[in-house]
Amino acid sequence: MTVHSHISKAKLKFARSLTQKKIRVRESAFVVEGWRAVEEACRAGVKAEMFLFTEDAAQNTRQSAVFHLAIGSAREVCEVTDSELEAVTETVTAQGVALVLPQFRHSLEGVLGSLRDDVPHTVIALDRISEPGNAGTIIRTADWFGADMVVLSEDCVDLYNPKLIRSTMGSVFHVPVVECAKEEEKRSFTHALQTCREAGFTIFGAEVGAPTDLRSIRWARRSVIVIGSEAHGVSDGTKQEISECFAIPRFGRAESLNAGTAAAVILGVKGLL
Amino acid sequence: MTVHSHISKAKLKFARSLTQKKIRVRESAFVVEGWRAVEEACRAGVKAEMFLFTEDAAQNTRQSAVFHLAIGSAREVCEVTDSELEAVTETVTAQGVALVLPQFRHSLEGVLGSLRDDVPHTVIALDRISEPGNAGTIIRTADWFGADMVVLSEDCVDLYNPKLIRSTMGSVFHVPVVECAKEEEKRSFTHALQTCREAGFTIFGAEVGAPTDLRSIRWARRSVIVIGSEAHGVSDGTKQEISECFAIPRFGRAESLNAGTAAAVILGVKGLL
Repeated sequence: MTVHSHISKAKLKFARSLTQKKIRVRESAFVVEGWRAVEEACRAGVKAEMFLFTEDAAQNTRQSAVFHLAIGSAREVCEVTDSELEAVTETVTAQGVALVLPQFRHSLEGVLGSLRDDVPHTVIALDRISEPGNAGTIIRTADWFGADMVVLSEDCVDLYNPKLIRSTMGSVFHVPVVECAKEEEKRSFTHALQTCREAGFTIFGAEVGAPTDLRSIRWARRSVIVIGSEAHGVSDGTKQEISECFAIPRFGRAESLNAGTAAAVILGVKGLL
Repeated sequence: MTVHSHISKAKLKFARSLTQKKIRVRESAFVVEGWRAVEEACRAGVKAEMFLFTEDAAQNTRQSAVFHLAIGSAREVCEVTDSELEAVTETVTAQGVALVLPQFRHSLEGVLGSLRDDVPHTVIALDRISEPGNAGTIIRTADWFGADMVVLSEDCVDLYNPKLIRSTMGSVFHVPVVECAKEEEKRSFTHALQTCREAGFTIFGAEVGAPTDLRSIRWARRSVIVIGSEAHGVSDGTKQEISECFAIPRFGRAESLNAGTAAAVILGVKGLL
């Protein structure tokens, strides 16, 4: 096995600084950890800036294929201690490996342009989902049910939040996720929904208390499903873009469902009914 | 408004100590916070040991009905500062109110005995779900879809874990949750499943890769749905109690779903198909 040097102080400081959103934005980089995520990133063809690993991870024979894949796909390869890795990933469950990756930017138009005409398509659009675990879980669920894209509104949690990335369990490397931005009108959430409509999509929205039952929705061949935050629902501006609202019928006494759960029920019922 | 004294050091220490599981077990008590949970606890008729509130909460006119409900249902009423409440609840989102409650113990036999014969029943049985947010979300989803009971296996997270309680959003006061225990055979998870079967339930189990598709399951009028952990699935001992295993069909590339998501899809499809 090639001998790799221990990480330098400067590089460690850089990797650690990516726990802060403003640094992630400035450097256009982020961190993933754990064998699964490392493998998915490499398989997706993402070229890593750094591959960090502990001595134990290097000796993990069950993962040696992934280990070599990561070494081959990274510009720099650095050994770290357990506590150094913990500082970079802010978790104790990193399994001894992490990648520093460049942020990728999917363009909405690019994804829409790549869709085939002969199969149905589903896009999930998240409106003001601020909890990273919820957003990440929804990306993972969208991946499971074969959705084509996830769109995050301006005021969602940022895509590269470590907890979000972790809870996608690698699905962030499967499903294109488009982040909207406040700064440019052409990158607003409203504009994204309009662009989807122009590409033949019908915009549906989940809303607690809407009179239409999820079961009676007739999905379009191209459907956008807007899911709002648990606390605030779908914003007024977004509502104007929605053609049809529906609610998940309730049989018990819970006042609401969390956004991740609602998305799972909707995707499950849509996909399986 | 009645004037209530500031909390004593001893009582604050007691309330704070309940963040530790061993103290919660010894004292058979736990803490809930936030207006929603306080209201649900009071409406469920649970007699609180203490009601803690901040000055701001006492002056929150929108919540004055709940405030007086809590004062009426607590043996002791104590004013606290924001930081004292934060130490007790380990969260900054307590909204200024918390209750110290006695742990309740639903008996499996008691719940089964209370079920009506003329309507279908669903029981959710969680096998080795250790993540408190997942377990709490499943209890909330079970409540939404009108499940009759949730059973936690011996090695699930403990029911009174603060994060679990918080993520039930009050549903822990709606749905009876039965905790299994290692110490007594009669309180084992296996025994609980057997007791359900004797009460006319069929035991179904969700398992990644099972050949039967969720959609082709013919649910019984009395159905137990076993959901295993994401990492380890359903344990071997539990599998022996399951009459029929099924899988959630996958259309994309995610390798698995998290347990909370899987439960949502299953309950959604079962309830809505």
